[in-house]
Amino acid sequence: MALGVDIGGTKVLGVAVDGADRVVAEARVPTPQSGVERPWRHGEPPGDGAGETGAEVADAVAEVVATLTAVVGGAEASPGGPPPVGVGAPGMLDRHGVLVFAPNLQRAAGADFRALVTARLPGFPLVVENDANCAAIAEFVLGAARGADHSVMVTLGTGIGGGLISRGSVLAGAFGFAGEIGHMTVDPSGPPCSCGRRGCWERYASGAGLGRLAREAAHAGRLAEVVALAGGDPELVRGEHVTRAALDGEPAALAVMAELGWWLALGLANLTAVLDPSRIVLGGGLVEAGELLLAPTRRAFVELVEGASARPDVEIVAAVLGERAGAVGAALAARAGGLW
Amino acid sequence: MALGVDIGGTKVLGVAVDGADRVVAEARVPTPQSGVERPWRHGEPPGDGAGETGAEVADAVAEVVATLTAVVGGAEASPGGPPPVGVGAPGMLDRHGVLVFAPNLQRAAGADFRALVTARLPGFPLVVENDANCAAIAEFVLGAARGADHSVMVTLGTGIGGGLISRGSVLAGAFGFAGEIGHMTVDPSGPPCSCGRRGCWERYASGAGLGRLAREAAHAGRLAEVVALAGGDPELVRGEHVTRAALDGEPAALAVMAELGWWLALGLANLTAVLDPSRIVLGGGLVEAGELLLAPTRRAFVELVEGASARPDVEIVAAVLGERAGAVGAALAARAGGLW
Repeated sequence: MALGVDIGGTKVLGVAVDGADRVVAEARVPTPQSGVERPWRHGEPPGDGAGETGAEVADAVAEVVATLTAVVGGAEASPGGPPPVGVGAPGMLDRHGVLVFAPNLQRAAGADFRALVTARLPGFPLVVENDANCAAIAEFVLGAARGADHSVMVTLGTGIGGGLISRGSVLAGAFGFAGEIGHMTVDPSGPPCSCGRRGCWERYASGAGLGRLAREAAHAGRLAEVVALAGGDPELVRGEHVTRAALDGEPAALAVMAELGWWLALGLANLTAVLDPSRIVLGGGLVEAGELLLAPTRRAFVELVEGASARPDVEIVAAVLGERAGAVGAALAARAGGLW
Repeated sequence: MALGVDIGGTKVLGVAVDGADRVVAEARVPTPQSGVERPWRHGEPPGDGAGETGAEVADAVAEVVATLTAVVGGAEASPGGPPPVGVGAPGMLDRHGVLVFAPNLQRAAGADFRALVTARLPGFPLVVENDANCAAIAEFVLGAARGADHSVMVTLGTGIGGGLISRGSVLAGAFGFAGEIGHMTVDPSGPPCSCGRRGCWERYASGAGLGRLAREAAHAGRLAEVVALAGGDPELVRGEHVTRAALDGEPAALAVMAELGWWLALGLANLTAVLDPSRIVLGGGLVEAGELLLAPTRRAFVELVEGASARPDVEIVAAVLGERAGAVGAALAARAGGLW
């Protein structure tokens, strides 16, 4: 048995995975965001004080683990001692388990998750990894990236996370920060990003990006039916309203999905130029739109990738592990003692 | 002894490297471009007909090898038979030695360089590799990337080539095309690129990009002294004119170099987000500008990279092997029997 916990922007989701890679228990709590934020710079000691957001998030991880062990057996019940625990965290997590920068979990920047979680789960063997790296390994071992030794996992949530599989294992980079693909600049004069810069890919091609594209279209008067769904105010239009209208075949909503697919394909083409994957796996909440998103993305990708007619096709497929991919991958990482 | 030949956009440059990694001979000829171009698509047989540009380029490679062996000893003189030959080619070169797409050597697309060169150099053990991958391995083994197991080599010539070192060896990707970094889109509404798309990084941050930035500044009336250097016509302004004026301290030329450095840093920041290198090595002709280019690039990089204040510094340094890096790396690859 191994436990995996995925810290997301909105929820902390945990799973217990048995020796046959089956999910045998699940637990979730909302991601705490009420704690104190501490400004933090490289070289300073990491935060671990009571009341800080990082500590609250670690409390939530421990709570999820307690729920899981209550179901599948905890420290006492396991013949070999407590089960290994893997924790996946978003953003720039260094090789020591410190979250150095996280545009979508900003208040926890500087948190030493390895120390914070260890203090709450004494005796549990622990690994802490980037969430998208966890999702990538889960899809590579059990899901849509099986057999693709050079592949890219793209998680389309509030932001965009990335996990790179190269030569059959996770490419983590010099400091553990590789795969921060949502923060490639794709338009230097584009909208401001939560990371402090402009025109990042995740401003266009994430869940938040879809909402932004939709509100632009709504303010331009092109999304009357979607605005009605949202209660009549263009500012209240969210990505879900667009995908729902697109599923009903509403042409203006389909046009916004095509625009989203074009921006998504632009970043995928950039990643293909740099990394040359044979397969790209799209995960995260946005992918629930299915072919509404995949079809325009594949069409645009062929226009946008270098030398399309001269190169083998790059497969662009949906993830199969759904919202559990990160947690399952964290459990796999825990069992293996780390991802790299 | 090993021989390395680098096929560039303007010259074919060869070196002989001895067992102590010293360059003991050099030869060069202009890159032939007069042959017939054959339209080519993935899946078609590669070109090898007489008169095609690929065959002319292979003739030039054989000529360079003949000059080198005349100096250092050829097939007969070597105790172990002919020395191994490595050939570096620009663009998308597949794992079989076929140049499938090459924006800066377009007329040779579809050429099977392994077959073409083997036919001209029977008995010589041959490897064919991407030129920037060769430059990367040369700088990693002998030059500015020594000790940086996660590093990126950026060659700033007519275009931009890339060689990625990951976990201490070249990252080639699924098909051999990784490192086509010049064709990341950095502005979807940017100028057309020779690859057929728009706003590629190499439109801004290469030798050709410097010329384009300079002509824009010249037409806007901001580069009077540089235009005079070029003979009075803004359209005749080239990158060399700008670097020469910048070396003399001409403020408008320095401003263009700063603009070049900003665009260069933008792409380096994108590569850092994706790959997390600890060091970036800049090579190619543009780097002869030295600190005139490096200083503004480093300044802009800190503004443009995600989480700059929270992460360890990324070193941005000049290559040390100069224009020979690709040829030296090709010789190292030949000696090793391939790069990956």
